[in-house]
Amino acid sequence: MNMTSLPSSKKIYVKGSLHPEIRVPMREVTLSGENAPVYVYDTSGPYTDPNAKIDIKKGLEPMRESWIRSRGDAEHRKPFRAKPGRNVSQMHYAKKGVITQEMEYIAIRENLLVEKMLENPSLLSRHKGENFGASIPKKITAEFVREEVARGRAIIPANINHLELEPTIIGRNFLVKINANIGNSAVSSTIAEEVEKMTWATLWGADTVMDLSTGKNIHETREWIIRNSPVPIGTVPIYQALEKVSGKAEELTWEIYRDTLIEQAEQGVSYFTIHAGALLRYVPLTARRVTGIVSRGGSIHAKWCLAHHKENFAYTHFEEICEIMKAYDVSFSLGDGLRPGSIADANDAAQFAELETLGELTKTAWRHDVQVMIEGPGHVPMQLIKINMEKQLAECGEAPFYTLGPLTTDIAPGYDHITSGIGAAMIGWYGCAMLCYVTPKEHLGLPDKEDVKTGVITYKIAAHAADLAKGHPGAQIRDNALSKARFEFRWEDQFNLSLDPPTAKSFHDETLPQDSAKVAHFCSMCGPQFCSMKITQDVRDYAMKLELDEKEALKRGF
Amino acid sequence: MNMTSLPSSKKIYVKGSLHPEIRVPMREVTLSGENAPVYVYDTSGPYTDPNAKIDIKKGLEPMRESWIRSRGDAEHRKPFRAKPGRNVSQMHYAKKGVITQEMEYIAIRENLLVEKMLENPSLLSRHKGENFGASIPKKITAEFVREEVARGRAIIPANINHLELEPTIIGRNFLVKINANIGNSAVSSTIAEEVEKMTWATLWGADTVMDLSTGKNIHETREWIIRNSPVPIGTVPIYQALEKVSGKAEELTWEIYRDTLIEQAEQGVSYFTIHAGALLRYVPLTARRVTGIVSRGGSIHAKWCLAHHKENFAYTHFEEICEIMKAYDVSFSLGDGLRPGSIADANDAAQFAELETLGELTKTAWRHDVQVMIEGPGHVPMQLIKINMEKQLAECGEAPFYTLGPLTTDIAPGYDHITSGIGAAMIGWYGCAMLCYVTPKEHLGLPDKEDVKTGVITYKIAAHAADLAKGHPGAQIRDNALSKARFEFRWEDQFNLSLDPPTAKSFHDETLPQDSAKVAHFCSMCGPQFCSMKITQDVRDYAMKLELDEKEALKRGF
Repeated sequence: MNMTSLPSSKKIYVKGSLHPEIRVPMREVTLSGENAPVYVYDTSGPYTDPNAKIDIKKGLEPMRESWIRSRGDAEHRKPFRAKPGRNVSQMHYAKKGVITQEMEYIAIRENLLVEKMLENPSLLSRHKGENFGASIPKKITAEFVREEVARGRAIIPANINHLELEPTIIGRNFLVKINANIGNSAVSSTIAEEVEKMTWATLWGADTVMDLSTGKNIHETREWIIRNSPVPIGTVPIYQALEKVSGKAEELTWEIYRDTLIEQAEQGVSYFTIHAGALLRYVPLTARRVTGIVSRGGSIHAKWCLAHHKENFAYTHFEEICEIMKAYDVSFSLGDGLRPGSIADANDAAQFAELETLGELTKTAWRHDVQVMIEGPGHVPMQLIKINMEKQLAECGEAPFYTLGPLTTDIAPGYDHITSGIGAAMIGWYGCAMLCYVTPKEHLGLPDKEDVKTGVITYKIAAHAADLAKGHPGAQIRDNALSKARFEFRWEDQFNLSLDPPTAKSFHDETLPQDSAKVAHFCSMCGPQFCSMKITQDVRDYAMKLELDEKEALKRGF
Repeated sequence: MNMTSLPSSKKIYVKGSLHPEIRVPMREVTLSGENAPVYVYDTSGPYTDPNAKIDIKKGLEPMRESWIRSRGDAEHRKPFRAKPGRNVSQMHYAKKGVITQEMEYIAIRENLLVEKMLENPSLLSRHKGENFGASIPKKITAEFVREEVARGRAIIPANINHLELEPTIIGRNFLVKINANIGNSAVSSTIAEEVEKMTWATLWGADTVMDLSTGKNIHETREWIIRNSPVPIGTVPIYQALEKVSGKAEELTWEIYRDTLIEQAEQGVSYFTIHAGALLRYVPLTARRVTGIVSRGGSIHAKWCLAHHKENFAYTHFEEICEIMKAYDVSFSLGDGLRPGSIADANDAAQFAELETLGELTKTAWRHDVQVMIEGPGHVPMQLIKINMEKQLAECGEAPFYTLGPLTTDIAPGYDHITSGIGAAMIGWYGCAMLCYVTPKEHLGLPDKEDVKTGVITYKIAAHAADLAKGHPGAQIRDNALSKARFEFRWEDQFNLSLDPPTAKSFHDETLPQDSAKVAHFCSMCGPQFCSMKITQDVRDYAMKLELDEKEALKRGF
């Protein structure tokens, strides 16, 4: 599929008012007849703008360069870096009361054009959300974005060297976000394929992408990805550090790790998974697990700790890491190196001990005005999911939670996008700010392009189901518009409003391929003879008549 | 795939003790090395028994014939029917204190061979369930089955004319069950295809199958399906009644409907969806909905009521229907004809008014010792799911709930197995007894064989996730066995314990096709160079050393 071919869709841009130079993209879905367009959140970047010139060897336009220069606190000696003694993190600006371009951009983006869409009252939500203490305003203002970032309750992952970035926010008072993992490994895949997976993932709605490459050419792969990415890129720097010592964990040093952080920060990575909470004393807590330590990062640190009988260097050097983070505005994604790898190991002592340490580290990072989110599991049966969210909020001062799934059972390899999509929807509802996708290949192999798409769509479903349940203002508009189209047999509108229009259309066409079927007032489920939707019109006529009769009776009574 | 080819699997039979003539099937999954076999619930019928002779023109062996004859209360004038004045329902026996063959069969089947499997303590569950007032015993006895059926809290859908049936139970103190819908419509599909879809659905784990045929040959299609089905078959008799009046709802009569019920009861249908709660006075409550009435049955009754300005004949003749049900032991599946068809319409006045009437009808049916379950929605956002379950239990005296999904968002046609799998897992956890599957083609077209499989696997995931969360004894055994196999790089065991072994294997082989990779201690995700699971062995060695050191210290201390 061509990158510009989402049907009946047009990219539009909304201007800033505080910062008139910003242009916030949205996707306008045109409907048939008199139905007003629906505006949806758009993560696809310039690739879906027919006027954009794309050359992946050059990368995207450095949109944010003028924003960063305008603040006068960063030096551009090829990579941007904070001037000595300055802190360029969005949290730092937020605490000082400054509303950045990124903040206004995000406010416009989160609101979509809800007010405009709600001029059609049939699209109004009819339900109250349940949001477990979140406080989602009816309209997101740039000032609200600033407050949430200052408070640490949301982060804007936006390295000053990712100039191509279209800023986004991660926090439980905003739309739930999803991450897609890509990355080659020693076994397979090429750089161009990985770049294509990234643009493919964002076309379908990935809000951030993690490059988890572990093989050769890690630096070059990442460079290509960042230069061409409209979304924040996250990494796990310990993977590259490990490559530098040929895979021998015990040969890692703080210096090698630190230099890797700087190298990646200069390239423009917006968040680092740092497993600083996987402490030496927690490692024995995993010994009786069914599946031990399953986090690659966690096990690298554990192996190093055991080999040297020393504390984790990411923990002992944590304040030095903070200095690096604030010079480029890289956000922490504090890694759950001891997360459970099976239902059996969920919520155990090792997992929760590490979470408490992540809470302690969050407060340290915040003293440096460095942005933080917290990674979470993993594999958790449904009845144990909520306590994960509650404990994370309590331990980590409401810093955003970012979970992998969680998978709600282990018995369906090949379908772990679904076992985990269930858990992801639930924890998103409970307050998780970002959901890391899982593809059908999880536990079995490397995802190909189709797997990436399946994973992204599944997680868009989970995130949106969570937004609905939380009562996010405007979330239900798209559901209502699609349901209305369905009920009125506007087949094309139904397809175009869906998360995956080509698939919806092709499924319909398998049974009823004729073009005429797309305006037909029936579908293949019931056939033309009998259709429940048609009967509703009779019901409406009847109800209307009842009302008229009642009015008539009342009139006569008087 | 051949019906006998689930890998490393063998069908075994467990004998009854109260009723030594019963032989309860289970699937034994053989594992490698010293790992004891795992026993899983088996819905696939004789098709997976290499010794069974299958001839779909003849149908399966009438296993239950001797059971029914032994009770002496049914006459066999070709179809079985209760002798005058007798009631052959399982509820009737249960209330009289009789433990039938069906009840003992179910007790054996629900327990699997948990005690035997738990001789391996590493398979023990480590978590407490949360079950919202359900009371699941550690071991299911035949007496417990009897009590639950007598109490109306569970049903055994087992028409005395479905002699080929392997009995199953639906109730919230038992394993959560799933239903697969099949059935041709006016537009496509043939009888043989539908029979094949049925055996295909039960191979993957469908606990019941509904035949929703609406086109020609309804009677003949159903005959083929029942004679070849090891699981209970449900129908919506109003569909066939409507065919008899050429699709003109207003021409329906009570007599045509009644005769259709008898015709289907004689064939062996085990539960009927009866939309007796869709009352005339509730119809106007749907007028302002976004998607009106979406239940076919509901809209047929609504149309009839409006055309005649009379009350729903299934309601006014409800006690006569009970007389038919108890003469064949057909269970009610009281239909939710006014269920919501969109997120917007969830939990509205029409839906809940009908539910209250279904509660009233439940009590009437129970006075006749007729078994009842209650159908539920549909489309419900996550925050409104729980109240559906609570209200159903309260209104309907804890009769089992049987829901379609619910879908948790409307924006993903083409993926409604997932949008609904999320809701299904949740409501299953809250206490729903059976989950009606949704396939990827829902809202778009008729499911083909692959869609049926995808729907069934997705719903097995939802049901199992619910069993885990409720703390069903033994549910976690399979998760633990699979996780252990994963951790020990027993790839083949991991595949064989999964819900879909061929898919798991083929996904693995896409990246690492060599046979040697299946015993390799790594996978394509991290490559051979580095693997987190390998590190855990070091951790275990370290922890063991620590413990030894501690013991040594203690010893010296004394």
